[in-house]
Parts: sequence; C-alpha cells; structure tokens
Amino acid sequence: MLIDDRVLTDPTRTIDLNADLAEGFGRWTLTDDDALLDVVTSANVACGFHAGDPSTMRRVCARAAERGVRIGAQVSYRDLAGFGRRAMDVPAQELADEIAYQIGALRAFAEAAGSTVAYVKPHGALYNRAVHDAEQAAAIADAVVFAGHGVPLLGLPGSCLEQAAAERSVGYVFEAFADRAYTAAGTLVPRGVPGAVIEDADEVVRRSIGIARDGVVTAQTGEPVQVRARSLCLHGDTPGAAALAVRVRAALAEAGVGIEAFA
Amino acid sequence: MLIDDRVLTDPTRTIDLNADLAEGFGRWTLTDDDALLDVVTSANVACGFHAGDPSTMRRVCARAAERGVRIGAQVSYRDLAGFGRRAMDVPAQELADEIAYQIGALRAFAEAAGSTVAYVKPHGALYNRAVHDAEQAAAIADAVVFAGHGVPLLGLPGSCLEQAAAERSVGYVFEAFADRAYTAAGTLVPRGVPGAVIEDADEVVRRSIGIARDGVVTAQTGEPVQVRARSLCLHGDTPGAAALAVRVRAALAEAGVGIEAFA
Amino acid sequence: MLIDDRVLTDPTRTIDLNADLAEGFGRWTLTDDDALLDVVTSANVACGFHAGDPSTMRRVCARAAERGVRIGAQVSYRDLAGFGRRAMDVPAQELADEIAYQIGALRAFAEAAGSTVAYVKPHGALYNRAVHDAEQAAAIADAVVFAGHGVPLLGLPGSCLEQAAAERSVGYVFEAFADRAYTAAGTLVPRGVPGAVIEDADEVVRRSIGIARDGVVTAQTGEPVQVRARSLCLHGDTPGAAALAVRVRAALAEAGVGIEAFA
Amino acid sequence: MLIDDRVLTDPTRTIDLNADLAEGFGRWTLTDDDALLDVVTSANVACGFHAGDPSTMRRVCARAAERGVRIGAQVSYRDLAGFGRRAMDVPAQELADEIAYQIGALRAFAEAAGSTVAYVKPHGALYNRAVHDAEQAAAIADAVVFAGHGVPLLGLPGSCLEQAAAERSVGYVFEAFADRAYTAAGTLVPRGVPGAVIEDADEVVRRSIGIARDGVVTAQTGEPVQVRARSLCLHGDTPGAAALAVRVRAALAEAGVGIEAFA
Repeated sequence: MLIDDRVLTDPTRTIDLNADLAEGFGRWTLTDDDALLDVVTSANVACGFHAGDPSTMRRVCARAAERGVRIGAQVSYRDLAGFGRRAMDVPAQELADEIAYQIGALRAFAEAAGSTVAYVKPHGALYNRAVHDAEQAAAIADAVVFAGHGVPLLGLPGSCLEQAAAERSVGYVFEAFADRAYTAAGTLVPRGVPGAVIEDADEVVRRSIGIARDGVVTAQTGEPVQVRARSLCLHGDTPGAAALAVRVRAALAEAGVGIEAFA
Repeated sequence: MLIDDRVLTDPTRTIDLNADLAEGFGRWTLTDDDALLDVVTSANVACGFHAGDPSTMRRVCARAAERGVRIGAQVSYRDLAGFGRRAMDVPAQELADEIAYQIGALRAFAEAAGSTVAYVKPHGALYNRAVHDAEQAAAIADAVVFAGHGVPLLGLPGSCLEQAAAERSVGYVFEAFADRAYTAAGTLVPRGVPGAVIEDADEVVRRSIGIARDGVVTAQTGEPVQVRARSLCLHGDTPGAAALAVRVRAALAEAGVGIEAFA
Repeated sequence: MLIDDRVLTDPTRTIDLNADLAEGFGRWTLTDDDALLDVVTSANVACGFHAGDPSTMRRVCARAAERGVRIGAQVSYRDLAGFGRRAMDVPAQELADEIAYQIGALRAFAEAAGSTVAYVKPHGALYNRAVHDAEQAAAIADAVVFAGHGVPLLGLPGSCLEQAAAERSVGYVFEAFADRAYTAAGTLVPRGVPGAVIEDADEVVRRSIGIARDGVVTAQTGEPVQVRARSLCLHGDTPGAAALAVRVRAALAEAGVGIEAFA
Repeated sequence: MLIDDRVLTDPTRTIDLNADLAEGFGRWTLTDDDALLDVVTSANVACGFHAGDPSTMRRVCARAAERGVRIGAQVSYRDLAGFGRRAMDVPAQELADEIAYQIGALRAFAEAAGSTVAYVKPHGALYNRAVHDAEQAAAIADAVVFAGHGVPLLGLPGSCLEQAAAERSVGYVFEAFADRAYTAAGTLVPRGVPGAVIEDADEVVRRSIGIARDGVVTAQTGEPVQVRARSLCLHGDTPGAAALAVRVRAALAEAGVGIEAFA
C-alpha cells in the first residue's frame, strides 16, 4: 500500500457526513429527511429537477438551518421521470444554465432560513458523467463560478469534475462511500458488479471508521487502499438508512473522529 | 369625472414601461426579447413555470443589465402546457413556495449579470386571480416577504394583491394597460367582452399618453376615467408588438413624459 | 328514510371493488399495486398526468389482465407536482383533449396485455370539480365519446358528470365510499369537516356491507340514508390499505354480496 | 458508382413526402401544420414528449385524415425542455414503455379522426441514436411490436434500427433528405460539418428529383451516390419550409415521380 501524504485532505481526522435529502416530489416522499437531518452535517438538497418540490425544499432548509446542518445544492439533469439517473447529452451552456437555475432556486429557501447554499453536488447520472466527461464537468464548474457565490463542489477524487474545478479555482471537496466497494486503484467498483454495494451494516460501520480515521479501506481484491475524503456520503433512500446513519455517526465519534461540516 | 388627487401615484409625469419577456421555452420562442429590451425600462422575466428556460433567462438578464433595464420576476402557476393561463387552486403555502422558488432561480441570473430581481409581477391566470382571491394574493405577498429581498409587487390598483401587499408592508406599484378598454369604474373590461382589447395602434399610442401624462383614459362607455399608474404594460407577444412599443415610447417622450423605471 | 326503488342501480346485491393504482411516478411509489390487484375487480390506472409512468402502467395493466381485473383510465388534470389535487380552469376543449390523450396512452398498455380500457374515472380535483362544474363535466364526457370506445364513466350519483354522461348516452356507474361520512342527503361530507374520513377499520367494513348489500349507510347525523352504488371505492394510498381491502372483500363475500366488475 | 439493384426499395419511381408536424406545445407554435398538410403524404405527428400538446395532436390528425395524409407517431425521449434533441441513456424497457405510451396517445386522436397510426418514426436525438445504438434501437422496435399494431418504422437505411426491425419482422421504410449532404458512402454528413445542410432551394429541389426518380444524389465529395428511399423528409420548422415543400412536390410531379404514401 502506497500512502501519499500530500493527498491526505484532512490530517486532523475530521469528517463531514452528507446525505441526499428532499428527494420527494409533491405527493411522493422518499428520504426520511427529519431523521437524517439529526445525523448529517451536510444536506444535499434536491432542487426540483430530479426531485425536490419547493415546499419540501423550504422545510428541509428550515430544519437544516435550525440544526446547523449545511445546505448544499444537489443539482441534476432535468429529469423527474428518471430521477436524474439517465445521462443526457445536454449542451454545455444549457447544462450550466440549468444548474445555475437550481442553485438560485435553492438559495431562496436557504437564505430565508438564515443559512446559505454552502456547496454544490451533482446528482445521479450527472455525478457519474462528471467523473469522465470533461465537457459536462466543465459546465458544472462553470455554473458554480457563475452562480455559486464562491462555494465548493463535492465529488469524487480524480474525476474530470475535480480538474474542471481546479482550472477555475473552484473549491473541490472529496467524498467517499462506506457502503460501496473500492478497487485496488481507489476507485468505486461500478454498480452492477457483484458486491459493488455493501449491505452488511456492521461492515459499513467498520468501513466508515477506516475511511474517516485512517483514510484506508479494504479493496474488493483484499488489499488496503487509500481513500481520501473530507466527507462521507450516507445513503438516505433505503429502508433502515436513517438507523444506519445513526450507528455510523456514533461509531465515528467513539473512534475519536470529529464530525464536522466542511463548508 | 372625479379626480382624487391623493391617489395620483406619480404627479411628476414619469412612467415606467414594462413588458413580459423570456417567454419562450427551449426550442420555442415567443417574445422579441432583444427588440423590447431596447424600449422598456422594466423586464418581466418568465421564470420557468409558464415559460422561460434557464438559457433564455440568462440571456435576457444579461441584456437587460447591459441596458439598465430593471429585471422583475414574472412568477406563475406551474403550467407550461397552459402557459400559466389556467387558474389553479394551489394551497396557499404551496403557492408561496412555488413563487419563492421562481424568484430565487431568476435571481441567480440577475445577480450574475450584475443586476438583481427588482420587483415581482404575477403572470397570466395568477395575475387575474390575485385581483379577487384574497388567499392567493396573500400567498404571493408572503412569497415576496419570504424571498423577495424587500422588492415591490407590480399589479393592478384596487386588487386583493394590493391589499395583501399593504398588510405586509410590501411595496405595490400600479400598472395600466394602453391596449385594454376600461370601465367607467376604472377597472379593466374583461377579455372576451367585445372591444376589450384595443388593436388600433394610433389609439394605443393616444391612450398611453393619456394614462402617463394625464392619468386619464376614455372608458368604453365614453366618459373620462382616472387611471393611476406608475408603469405601463406593453404586450410583447403579438406581431408588431416591438414596433408599437417603439412608437409608444417615442410619443411619450414627445409629450414630455419621463420614461423611468420604478425600481 | 325514503327508499326510491327506481334508483337502485343494482338490485342483485353485486358490487364492484375499485381502487386507484399505478400512482407512483418513476422512482416514487405510492400504492401497493400488487396487493390491491389481488382484491379489487376494477383498477383505476393512473395515466401519467397526476401519476403513473409508462412502465408502471404497463406492469399494472399486465397484472390486472392476468387476474381478470378490469382496467379503467384514471384521468387527471396535468399536474404531477400537485398529484392532480389542484383544481384547474382548463378550457373545455383542451381538457377533453388532455383526457383523450390519457385514455389512448393507457389503452396501448391495456390492449398489449390482452385487455382494454373498460371505463374512465376522473381523479382528484377533476373528480370533485365534475360534481358541480357543468362545463368540465361536459368536457370529460365529450372525451369519453371522442376516445372512449363506448365505455362508461365511474363517479358519484347526482353529479354534473352524471348528467353530462346522460346527455351523451355515455354509461355512468355509481360508486360509493365506505370510508367517507355521508350527509343525510346522501352526499359526501366534505374532507376537512371533522369525521369526514372514517378511519376505524371495523366501521369501514360494516359500512361496506351496508352499502353493498342494503344500499344504506348511516349518515353523520345518525339516520340511515340510501346510497346507490354499483362499485365501492377502496383507498389504496394509506398504510394498511391493502389489508383493509382484503377484509372488506372477505366480509362482503360472507354477507352474501357478489363481487363482480361492472364493466 | 456502384448500383446494387437489390437495394432499390422502390423501382416504380414513387415517393412519399413526410414532415414533422404538430411540433408546437400549448402557447407555442413551430411548424406551419396546415400548409404542410397540403403537401405531404405522411405526417410525423409529435406525441407530447418533445412537442405536441393534445389539442394540436387532435387538430393535425383531423386535418390529416381529411386530406388522406397518413399519420405517423413521431416518438421522442421525454424532453420538452430540449425538444428531444438531447440523447438520453434511458434503460431499454423504460424507453420502450415511453414509446408505447406515445403511440397509444396519438392513436386516440388518429382513430377519432377516422384514421390510424400508420407508422412510427423516432424524433431528434432518439432518431440519431437509433442509427448506432443497438440497445435503444431494439427498444424502439420492441415498442412497435408491443403497441404498434403491425405498422412499420420509418428511418435511415443501414441503421441499427433497420436491423432491430428486421429481427422482429417489423416493417422498415427508408427515408432520405434532400436538404442534407451525403458522404460517398451514402450516409448523412453530420450536422456541424460545413455544408451539411443544404440551404439553396434550387439545389434542394434538384436533389429531391435525383433521390426520388433516380435513387442518386451527388455526394459532398462530388461523386454520385446511391440513396435508397421510399420517403423524402421535408423539414417543416424553418422559414419558407412550406413554400419549399410545395416546390419540391411540384417538381417531383413534373419529373414523373408518383407522390404516394407508403403506409
């Protein structure tokens, strides 16, 4: 195992916990927003393009602000029917504009709650596409420059999005996933590959500590691999998600890891 | 004819010219935004719920800012298919949230252009409903309190919306229509009534001067009637709309009326 | 209590059980479609305007056809964000066209499953509006004439929709609600009035038998009131809905009531 | 120039003229539907996913039926904001269901007009994707099997869609473009390449005759190239489109080419 000291984003053993929230739409609910807001330090709030109606956005922003949870814009392709999980060939300027629109809409609710939009995180297919698609990654970073008021992006290390952010002097915060398998190269095992998603709760808790305290996780191939992360993404849309999040947070605290928002 | 001096909003013979802009959506265009931005002093920019895609909103905001044209949020029911012309029984809180969302989204583009959202004007069926529906009027005014950063509303005198604004100390600016017939009571003749819309361009120009310089217009029944207005609404979605707007502006200037934004 | 023999639609003590199904959209689910399809005889399938994505429509139609459950088009205002619960002033022809569109879309899935669209039932705010709004009721009935292939409408007795159907020789089937309070006049107690919705499961079961076997239900004011119904609407979007539906069906069978679709 | 006799779809010098119609949405119009319906023999009617509101679909179907113009379902990704021009990674079954939905919706209007949906043609990005994406091509063909009532697809020769159709015994009709440049291999020069779109009306007319009468067009590189087509696609969304269509039709008739629908 090679440990490159330079890339350790956070040597102080402090981790942020982020989760996707406000992912209902009108009559439909998905995430247990209230329970998760008691656990996370950063709320990725859906902005209406893949989920997130205005009333839900308002409520989640108000509750997040009350708890000191940071509010991030979880921006997406315009795709309610596909929940933003269908990659789209959106021209760069058009994509940047659609993202700016979402950031602005969320900011109305964040500011009215006495908070602000503190970071931007792409959702779903846009998140995945920004890993390897330089043009769409650039569009996302452009939108943050255009409408982000200087806030950072939250995403995977080593992605096109990280590079696009760097080129524009946009902050870029690394996140990791305790419930996803990693390759020996430190990248995520793609969904669909057997074992890509870790469902055993104890294992997820162990990996959370490994990532947050040690910056290390066991790769699917068995060897330890360095995972740099200032934030840990907790999934909120599965049964038992909130309960698992509570366990992860408690275990991290017990392991001496500080739980603190990055933004 | 009774002239009540107290209600003359603008004794200095200054008028604002407003028009609905950015009312295309994606592939579709409607208003001649560029031409109208050379004429008006206030641009009611569609915010995506009845029209107005993000790229169009960005372009119109940029161009408005360049010309010193004020940017207003033209907020609507969520109704692309009906262009916001179908009244909807939206619960008050939900309506307020939908309006706040639109204001925030537009503000991203206005601010990026170096301007701001300087006022809010309801569109279409929401505009008409706010005349007589106290609950929806209150929701609109609540949204402006919540997300408007202290800006005024633009609307008809004597409406529920005016009252809702007053109750919340939200500014309220009167507008009038040079191409709409008025009753002897100073209210608009409803569309659908013969003669409700004045199509003769010369007549529209004459009425513009009457409203802006004298605060008086000839009612459909023949008598002069007082019309209080700090802003004159020019329609932008008809053939020849831009040309007529140019004529109106020139005639107003020649009549000694100052052309100046209210916000 | 006056019993008017002429209005007893079904003297043979046979009842249809209908429920709203397919009311998810993309990532979101709402109704327990599979469980309800084992109980009901008629499935009101959402058609995409208030809920009901194409894949869900296909699956529900296929499963309904397998079980011999009749498929009805649950047509709605175009209002995903409001789940079709916000009344809209849609011009009559436009409304009729939107309904025809939905019927046609559902028919593709019904026919591919070897079944057909056997009836039409308005959803939510459109259902309520059609009770007293003659113009919209006419639009619904016109759509059924235009695109319904001769099928009946399902709705409340004594409504504008019933009259519009009669005027066009469109069939009209009465339904009743076992979990809603009735007035002494035999109309529904409006939601919002205390006690309007009956939550006690035993009571719902009792009322189901009263309606289906005897055509009588106890009004909120205590007296028996005649309720004419060929179909009983079971709600599917509440926790325990499917379990209650199972109980109602079993109790009806035990009470000697035949369970049979009307279409 | 190699002429492969076997591939001449139509040795009898008969051509169909198709155009995209009904591509407005609500307040917005795009194509001059009435004028084009006087020229074409096949109308590709937008079905509501990229354009085409129900009322426009009804009107176009009625007018097409009156004129004997065949009605085809112009099916698209669900993308009103992008006019269906943004390729989307829609899972195959989901895509097939979305297409079936559109076919069914249009059929309601076609049948009410006394006609039927006589063919299916993918629109925009879906059309282009189906040329080289076997999975999406298969989904389209599956939808036609599922909901198409045995009608053929209309598309480019040599595409994945042609193969998917063949594998399912779905008919496949070739179309060509008189206003698009061809490569020496007989494929379209991609939009974006200089000269890809031919704007000179005289040239478009000449090429129409070349394609329809001789099955030959001059490639961008100067040599004659065989173009097999039973239908010629006329664009309807540009200024002067209808007038050009009239010229093309007249020139074809004068050249002895029969103008006849394929379906």
